[in-house]
Amino acid sequence: MQTKVVKFGGSSLADAAQFRKVAAIIKAEPERRYVVASAPGKRFSDDIKVTDMLYDCFSLAAKKQNIDEAFAKIEARYNGIIADLGLDFSLEKEFRKIRMAIEHHAGQDYVASRGEYLNSMILAQFLGFTFVDAESGIFFHSDGTFDDKQTYKALAALLEDVEYAVIPGFYGSMPNGTIKTFSRGGSDVTGAIVARAVHASIYENWTDVSGMLMADPRLVENPRVIEEITYRELRELAYMGATVMHEEAIFPVREACIPINIRNTNAPADPGTMIVPKSDRPVPTVITGVAGRKGFSSITIEKDRMNTEVGFGRKVLGVLEDFGVSFEHTPTGIDTMSVVVSTSSIADCKEAIIGRIFRDANADSVTIDDNMALIAIVGRGMVSNKGTAGRAFTAIANQNINVRMIDQGSGENNIIVGVDEDDYTAALQAIYGAFVGEA
Amino acid sequence: MQTKVVKFGGSSLADAAQFRKVAAIIKAEPERRYVVASAPGKRFSDDIKVTDMLYDCFSLAAKKQNIDEAFAKIEARYNGIIADLGLDFSLEKEFRKIRMAIEHHAGQDYVASRGEYLNSMILAQFLGFTFVDAESGIFFHSDGTFDDKQTYKALAALLEDVEYAVIPGFYGSMPNGTIKTFSRGGSDVTGAIVARAVHASIYENWTDVSGMLMADPRLVENPRVIEEITYRELRELAYMGATVMHEEAIFPVREACIPINIRNTNAPADPGTMIVPKSDRPVPTVITGVAGRKGFSSITIEKDRMNTEVGFGRKVLGVLEDFGVSFEHTPTGIDTMSVVVSTSSIADCKEAIIGRIFRDANADSVTIDDNMALIAIVGRGMVSNKGTAGRAFTAIANQNINVRMIDQGSGENNIIVGVDEDDYTAALQAIYGAFVGEA
Repeated sequence: MQTKVVKFGGSSLADAAQFRKVAAIIKAEPERRYVVASAPGKRFSDDIKVTDMLYDCFSLAAKKQNIDEAFAKIEARYNGIIADLGLDFSLEKEFRKIRMAIEHHAGQDYVASRGEYLNSMILAQFLGFTFVDAESGIFFHSDGTFDDKQTYKALAALLEDVEYAVIPGFYGSMPNGTIKTFSRGGSDVTGAIVARAVHASIYENWTDVSGMLMADPRLVENPRVIEEITYRELRELAYMGATVMHEEAIFPVREACIPINIRNTNAPADPGTMIVPKSDRPVPTVITGVAGRKGFSSITIEKDRMNTEVGFGRKVLGVLEDFGVSFEHTPTGIDTMSVVVSTSSIADCKEAIIGRIFRDANADSVTIDDNMALIAIVGRGMVSNKGTAGRAFTAIANQNINVRMIDQGSGENNIIVGVDEDDYTAALQAIYGAFVGEA
Repeated sequence: MQTKVVKFGGSSLADAAQFRKVAAIIKAEPERRYVVASAPGKRFSDDIKVTDMLYDCFSLAAKKQNIDEAFAKIEARYNGIIADLGLDFSLEKEFRKIRMAIEHHAGQDYVASRGEYLNSMILAQFLGFTFVDAESGIFFHSDGTFDDKQTYKALAALLEDVEYAVIPGFYGSMPNGTIKTFSRGGSDVTGAIVARAVHASIYENWTDVSGMLMADPRLVENPRVIEEITYRELRELAYMGATVMHEEAIFPVREACIPINIRNTNAPADPGTMIVPKSDRPVPTVITGVAGRKGFSSITIEKDRMNTEVGFGRKVLGVLEDFGVSFEHTPTGIDTMSVVVSTSSIADCKEAIIGRIFRDANADSVTIDDNMALIAIVGRGMVSNKGTAGRAFTAIANQNINVRMIDQGSGENNIIVGVDEDDYTAALQAIYGAFVGEA
């Protein structure tokens, strides 16, 4: 039997009704053996997440204030879930221990992690699964970085004889035994690590959306869900601002070539988005997605007979390296070279960079133009799908938008388009519309 | 009164009929004061240029063979022109001097330069202009490079009091007084130098075509003549293979911001092509021209999280610099960087370059794809003319051609498109057709 690792986010485990949906999903497939759980999230927009309530207790204790009232609210959240689920089960002992620890100034990470810890206990009880504490299976080095070797070994051993388990997300142990939380990616990272440790066939990440969207819903009305996306495409879109799982949560499974399936707890029939190492399936919309960001600047360097000078480009990039500036793109003409960088990265050293390029590369002119937005049109095989560029640029032109930069390399998954920041939204909508239909 | 410098090529001065056309052109405008003349060119396709006949004499003399017959043919060409023009004028003294010099093993450059020397004498006589020998006005350094300072000073002084003059093209003097010819650009260079020395308002370059064409006539049927082109646009198109004046012939006037007018001696009513420092006139066809070349390769480098690594691009370009390879374009994605280079430049060091990029830049993969053609779509203001990219890429797509690379920088005059070499002609025709009409 294959093993699926399933992770449920905070909104999927916010109350008893959500717990019931989660249980139904897990029980629907016996392969869903290892469940990674978040702390209870918001039940309504003004609600407070349990993790935030825990941070609140920690702050009060740090200021030597009484935490009784604050902690009682946390207990009430969990007790409400237990009661509504009709469980014959009590967390009183755990509550006492945690409250004591907070009052005795336990570390912030320990306090924050208890949201996942307690919620996972309830879920394990509800499902009839074994509760396996992440404290015993996920480890950090003393510098706070993730200890992959020890973790994968320990987790594999820990779960070897456990058929069905719930593991709290978000945290692990330091070498000295204290609790540490992941700084980025939260429970998603735990899920990816568990999936990798048990060689899962798939890592299902259950959340409150039916997958990753082809475009930012704040810019495009009702964008389509992406059915399938490769890790590489995801990285291109995520880099340009598409909100998906954090990179830290992707690398563990990516390295092991385990696909991720983003699913919706509230619409379990939706297939969601498959994030896969590779795909031979053609993309029905040609492009997988489009994403962009504002805040770029173009450094344009002119020099007569530039192209005959071996080493010119290297000198220019060397100057940027000296200033610690990483470049995004370097479109080149015969006597011109542009280097696109993030505006913030050069904010403090604009004049110095201009001066150094003049000096080191002996340029004729160096100018910096700000207010550029970059848009990545991403799609595997898109570049060999004839007509992609034509469709995109015709759509942009029809909106009367000026293209400031284009960059498309050989064998790549994307075309990068630079436009004025003022044209950003219209350009992105036009591109989406060109491939999917009117936005 | 403004001064125009007019240069006539070999076909414009191949026989008496052509001399009459030239004289009519010069006399039509009193501003056409300084005339730079080539040696007589071909009158028909199997004809021999006088310059080649002179090289022939030089070779015979070097082999200590008799030059009588060969030299007589040269004399006959010039005497024919003199007789047909009805001039009361003889070059006998000059012929004797030159023949003697050849027999006494004069330098090759001296021998070659006599074609222009003698033709200019006839033209001066025919026009009633002063003959001014380039020997006294154009100078080289002893290393063979052009001595701009001495030349401009000498030429300005020489022509200061000469209202109308004919100056032979193609040659000047070495510091030791011997004759040296320009290695590239021939009489065009002389014309540009004279124009610059006398601060001409325009440099008219009269030839046998009605200007520069928007595309290679071997690829596109009857391409339109370019009305106006900037120096920068010209450089972009010339780099991509458009045959125009040699760069050496452009830099003297370009630096002085003197426009060049390419005209047709056989169709003097045609306005020809204006090559100008700058232009505010919109391009009626949006693009000024399109040109391309085969023989490029794309080096594609992949590395996970490449874009977070400051200095990656510089390292890759540093490797190419170490091998003396200059790069054309460097399209970049998030985890990929392509470097487009000429295939010949890496032919002997392909494996070594791949190995060094692996080592120095710690790349995940390095691949080289050959058989790429680059096409430059050039036009001032084109990039801010909305829709240019859309038109071009739609036209390419309609031909079912795959776009391998796109590069367009900020504020540039061009879009560079990479296609398979097999698609080169069709792509170029499609682009031309998109802006001018069906090719």
